[in-house]
Amino acid sequence: MSTYHNDLILRAARGESTERTPVWLMRQAGRILPEYRAIRERLSGFKELVETPELAAEVTIQPVDILGVDAAIIFSDILVIPDAMGLTYEMIEKKGPFFPNTIRRRKDLEKIHVIDADELSYVYDAIRLTVKGLDGRVPLIGFAGAPFTILCYMVEGHGSKTFSLARKMLVQEPDLANALLDKITRSTIVYLRAQAEAGAAMLQIFDSWAGILSPDLFREFSLPYIEKICRAMPEGIPLTVFAKGANFSLMEMATLPCDTLGLDWNIPAKLAKQWAGPDKTLQGNLDPAVLYADGTEIVKRTKAMLDSFGSHRYIANLGHGVYPDTDPQAVKIFIETVKAYHHAEVY
Amino acid sequence: MSTYHNDLILRAARGESTERTPVWLMRQAGRILPEYRAIRERLSGFKELVETPELAAEVTIQPVDILGVDAAIIFSDILVIPDAMGLTYEMIEKKGPFFPNTIRRRKDLEKIHVIDADELSYVYDAIRLTVKGLDGRVPLIGFAGAPFTILCYMVEGHGSKTFSLARKMLVQEPDLANALLDKITRSTIVYLRAQAEAGAAMLQIFDSWAGILSPDLFREFSLPYIEKICRAMPEGIPLTVFAKGANFSLMEMATLPCDTLGLDWNIPAKLAKQWAGPDKTLQGNLDPAVLYADGTEIVKRTKAMLDSFGSHRYIANLGHGVYPDTDPQAVKIFIETVKAYHHAEVY
Repeated sequence: MSTYHNDLILRAARGESTERTPVWLMRQAGRILPEYRAIRERLSGFKELVETPELAAEVTIQPVDILGVDAAIIFSDILVIPDAMGLTYEMIEKKGPFFPNTIRRRKDLEKIHVIDADELSYVYDAIRLTVKGLDGRVPLIGFAGAPFTILCYMVEGHGSKTFSLARKMLVQEPDLANALLDKITRSTIVYLRAQAEAGAAMLQIFDSWAGILSPDLFREFSLPYIEKICRAMPEGIPLTVFAKGANFSLMEMATLPCDTLGLDWNIPAKLAKQWAGPDKTLQGNLDPAVLYADGTEIVKRTKAMLDSFGSHRYIANLGHGVYPDTDPQAVKIFIETVKAYHHAEVY
Repeated sequence: MSTYHNDLILRAARGESTERTPVWLMRQAGRILPEYRAIRERLSGFKELVETPELAAEVTIQPVDILGVDAAIIFSDILVIPDAMGLTYEMIEKKGPFFPNTIRRRKDLEKIHVIDADELSYVYDAIRLTVKGLDGRVPLIGFAGAPFTILCYMVEGHGSKTFSLARKMLVQEPDLANALLDKITRSTIVYLRAQAEAGAAMLQIFDSWAGILSPDLFREFSLPYIEKICRAMPEGIPLTVFAKGANFSLMEMATLPCDTLGLDWNIPAKLAKQWAGPDKTLQGNLDPAVLYADGTEIVKRTKAMLDSFGSHRYIANLGHGVYPDTDPQAVKIFIETVKAYHHAEVY
């Protein structure tokens, strides 16, 4: 039996029946909430918030209180992994992450190590505090970046439209790329297992840059490492894989030992259901730009999405993180629409 | 009868049989060639090159001489349209385009006008000089951005990963967005017709940012304007539409009155052929990162692509512009592989 007052999302992930569709938003803890900005403004920067467990826990819980979502997701960043492995990053306001050191040659691998379970303890502490603060209201999601996405930042050193340096390594020095991916994978396994041990009830792997790979290179350099991570996860913790933009690899992702597949806003529900098959829960895929529209339009497009995905094995969400300039009122309309919705079918 | 020594690309676009698959590369005239960089370094900036017909013609012809491609594409930029309409842009080295003025409110529409056929004469002059310089060797491709992509820049004022301001206008002020799209469309029709009149033998519409739209919004705000442009084109000039990332709208694009559909490197050939149907030529879709690999790998992946698309209604190309740091030797290997390839089928 579940220890949560609201375990809709866990049941949806496992393919059990639910009274209604669960809903949460990627980046729900963040700049859209004035309560978040009030905390953030007191601090030196984004990293201070990520690395201070009490504050990270506080902003993680905010959307549960304020927006009424069916899950919390720990406030953190996928880049804590390269940081802990030895490549520290700076988060530059309005520009994004910057790594003074990068991995370009084999000898650069000496700069990094596979992490131990006692590193990144600030994340596990934040998880423990969050679980305590949530007091069984909703489950907490832990997460990590997929190895390919982390490689992108470690090679390139910053964001990029094409990550062409990273992709150059894949085709020019596949052995080096695989050695790097292996180190990231082993660190990520340690990290996600420790998050579950600290109290995360679900885990999600974000392959944010999967969409810049051809299906061939995704199969070669991303999927096998995601699969290794999936296989190393503890029993009983539902696992979500979200490879943004890798829509034409969905049939292959359906063979992963995970419970849920995340969807961006490009793929139509019907095709996603067909390609993912009956054994996966789907999560997504509202265009985040829809939350810029007026209430009537948000309700209309949210209902259309709920209709298309149906009542079974589905978790409502956006197809990407909520944009920072979204009105929290619009987010509430989206959430309330999902909660009030009754599918035509019988549960 | 064709007036070109090599009219493979025109015949492939029209669905006629060809002795072999034609090949060219998006951004073939540009930084990959030392001969281009030699000219570019003498000038004040990118815009001077675009606006000087003699030099634009010279760099347009370079890849025909040096790489042996089956078509030239006029050296220009999709942003000459907003520039001529009244929003001048600056091209900032290593950062990209920047528009000091943008369109955000209805009254901003007063800043712009629908262009006349005597504006952008530097492009038409460059086309005339290029056609003369090519002397019938290969056809010259003219091009323009799709209205939605141009709107992105006019609203946002610069490049962006999400173009969320532009998408906000679509959902928040659809009437304003449609008024802007209409003005861009009318300017683009004038522009493309004048390019054909000056001697462009093919035309291509680039919807570079189509992939940030959901299929719903693409159907609503991009496709109808592309269709209007297609319908207004002169007879006998093959027309290509390349909506990068809009792969799930390919079946709808197959109903456009155009000859060829461009493909990025995400969609597998088999699905693209199925969705586009028998009445469209396909163009693409090698991952540009493949040209970072060694010769053996380039040959292998190019042949695999040629095999998948078959010999009929196909134009070999990359799935995006060639990356500026690509070795010209790798580009030559790609081109020579296409030229030397013999399909198993009989022509």
